[in-house]
Amino acid sequence: MKNDLLLRVARGERTERPPVWLMRQAGRILPQYREIRSRLSGFKELVETPELACEVTIQPVDELDVDAAIIFSDILVVPEAMGLTYEMIEARGPVFPKVIECLADIENLIPAADAAENLHYVYDAVALTKKELNGRVPLLGFAGAPFTIMAYMVEGKGSKTFSKAKQMLYREPEMAHKLLNAITETTIAYLLKKVAAGADLIQIFDSWAGVLSADDFQTFSLPYIQRIAAALQPLVPVTIFAKDAFHSLPEIAAANCNVVGLGWTIPVAWGRAQMGEKQVVQGNLDPCVLYSELPKVKELTNNMLKAFGPHHIANLGHGVYPDTPLDAVKCFVDTVKEFRY
Amino acid sequence: MKNDLLLRVARGERTERPPVWLMRQAGRILPQYREIRSRLSGFKELVETPELACEVTIQPVDELDVDAAIIFSDILVVPEAMGLTYEMIEARGPVFPKVIECLADIENLIPAADAAENLHYVYDAVALTKKELNGRVPLLGFAGAPFTIMAYMVEGKGSKTFSKAKQMLYREPEMAHKLLNAITETTIAYLLKKVAAGADLIQIFDSWAGVLSADDFQTFSLPYIQRIAAALQPLVPVTIFAKDAFHSLPEIAAANCNVVGLGWTIPVAWGRAQMGEKQVVQGNLDPCVLYSELPKVKELTNNMLKAFGPHHIANLGHGVYPDTPLDAVKCFVDTVKEFRY
Repeated sequence: MKNDLLLRVARGERTERPPVWLMRQAGRILPQYREIRSRLSGFKELVETPELACEVTIQPVDELDVDAAIIFSDILVVPEAMGLTYEMIEARGPVFPKVIECLADIENLIPAADAAENLHYVYDAVALTKKELNGRVPLLGFAGAPFTIMAYMVEGKGSKTFSKAKQMLYREPEMAHKLLNAITETTIAYLLKKVAAGADLIQIFDSWAGVLSADDFQTFSLPYIQRIAAALQPLVPVTIFAKDAFHSLPEIAAANCNVVGLGWTIPVAWGRAQMGEKQVVQGNLDPCVLYSELPKVKELTNNMLKAFGPHHIANLGHGVYPDTPLDAVKCFVDTVKEFRY
Repeated sequence: MKNDLLLRVARGERTERPPVWLMRQAGRILPQYREIRSRLSGFKELVETPELACEVTIQPVDELDVDAAIIFSDILVVPEAMGLTYEMIEARGPVFPKVIECLADIENLIPAADAAENLHYVYDAVALTKKELNGRVPLLGFAGAPFTIMAYMVEGKGSKTFSKAKQMLYREPEMAHKLLNAITETTIAYLLKKVAAGADLIQIFDSWAGVLSADDFQTFSLPYIQRIAAALQPLVPVTIFAKDAFHSLPEIAAANCNVVGLGWTIPVAWGRAQMGEKQVVQGNLDPCVLYSELPKVKELTNNMLKAFGPHHIANLGHGVYPDTPLDAVKCFVDTVKEFRY
C-alpha cells in the first residue's frame, strides 16, 4: 500500500504526522457527488449499485487527498438484510414501514448467515473499490452498533429521544437482548465478509449511544460492540465511535478496540486523561468550525492537533455537515497534512 | 409556607427526605390538562391566559402531590417579547417566521425594559398562581439560557445540530455576543419581574448546551447564565440546568448558582465527585424509566436517591415524556416521598 499511514497509527505506531479523513467525506460536500446523485432515483440506488458506490467512495480521495477512503454505504443495510426494508426520505431521513413490536417479529427476522448473503452488493462495492484504489490509501468499512440499529428497528425512524426503543429496554429487557443478539450475529457475519472483500479497518458507529445512561450503555450497547470487535480484531483494526458516551471512555477503550472515536464535546485533555496517552483516538473538531473563515479553520485545527499529540487520527467529531464549504474542508485536510509532531 | 422543603434544600439545608417535582409536570401526562387543552385553539392560548396557566400549573400539585409548582409557560416568550413571534406547530415544535440574520436584525429588537413589559401575562399568571397556591408549595419560575434562546432566534426552529446558529458563533462571534447580550438583558428584566410577582426560585434551562464544545459553552453560554444568576441570587435561589454540559460541571456550580440540574447521562457518583458532596443537585432519573413496571420504577428511583444522598432535589433528568403512564409518575413521586436518609 502506497499510503498506509492510518493503519500504522491505528496499530499503535508513532508517525510524523496524523492521518486525516472525514466522516461523510463522500457526499453532498462534493460537487462530483451532487452531480451523480442528481441523475439517480434516490440514495439507495447509489448504495446498492457497486460501480456507483465505488465512484463516490473514491471521489474524496481524488478531490481532497485524504488518507483513507470509506466505502459509501449506510448502517441501515443491516436491518434491511434482516428483513426490515427502509425508505430514505429526502430531508427527513430513514423510515421503516415495518418495525419490531414483539418476540414473533424478532423470530421472523432472517438469520445471520442468510442476512449477510443479502448484502452482496456491499461486498462487490468493497472489492471493486479496493481494486480501483490500487493501494493508494486504506479502504475503511463500517457498521452500526447493535443498539443504534435496534433503535431504528423498534422506533421505525430517527428520534431525538428514541423513547419507544428505550421503552423496550425497560419493559422487555429480555426481548431487547434477543434483538440485540440477532443484530450482533448478522453484523459479525456481514463485517467478516466485508473484510474478506477488502476492508482494511472497521469502524462501529453507535450514533445513538448518547440517549442511554452509563448503566444502560454498559448493559445494552457496549457488550455487543465488544463481541463484534473481538470477531474482527484478529483480522483488521477496529474503531469504536460511541457518540456522546463520555461516561464510558475507559470501558470503550478496553472493549477490544484499537481506536476510540471522540465527539467534539469531549475536551481533548480530559479524553486523553480517561484513557492514557497511548490510546489511539480519532476526532474531534466541531464540524461547525468548518463554517469559519479559513485562517480560523487552520488555527483551530492546529490547536486540536497539538492538544492530541501522537496516536491520533484527525477527523471531525461528527460527520461533515452537507452545507460545509468545500474550501474549508480542504483547508482542514491540508492543515493536518502540513502538521508535524 | 406550608411546604418549603424544596427551598430549604436549595439553600443548602439538610432535610429528612429530598423534595420532588418533575420538569413538564404540568402537561400532557395529566388527563385534566388534556381536557383543558382540547377546548383551546392552541398551546399559546394556554400560555397567554393567566387563569388557564394558573389552573394547569396547580393541577400536578393536586393530582401528584409534588413539592413544587412550576409556572406553565414557555422559554420562547422571551424572543417573542423581543420582537420575534413564534408559532407552536403540533407534533413539530416552534417555528419563527422571522429570524436573526444580520446586525440590523439585532438592533431592531425591542429593548430589554420594553420587552419585559410585553410579558405582563406571565407576571399575572405568576401572581394569580401564587395567590391560589396559598403557600401550599413554592412556585418556580424559569427562563431559557441566552444561548438556547439565540439558537432558536437564528435557526428559526428546533434542530439536532443547530448548525445555522453555531455558524454565527464561528463566522460572526461579535454579532453572536451582541445578540446574547440583548437576550441576557431582557431575560434579567423579565425574571426580576417574575420574582416580584411571586416566583420563589428560578431555573435557567440551557436545553441546547449539548451542541457546544466545552470551550464554546464557556465562551458563548455560561458567562451569560452567570450574569442572570448574579442578578437574581440576592432575591431567590437559582437552578442552572445546562443539559449535556458534562464537561463544565464545576464551572456551572461556580456560576452563582444554588442548584445544578443534571441530565440522566451523568452518572451520579461521577457528578458528585465533580462538584463535592455539599453542592445541591437536581435530577436525574432517565425519563424512560417511567415506562417500566411499577416495582422497577420504585427500585430505580430508590437507587438514585441512595446514590445522591442529601443535598438533592429529586426529578427526572429531562422533562417527563408526554406518553408516560400516570401511575408510573405517581409511583416515582410517592417513592421519593416515602424515602428517608
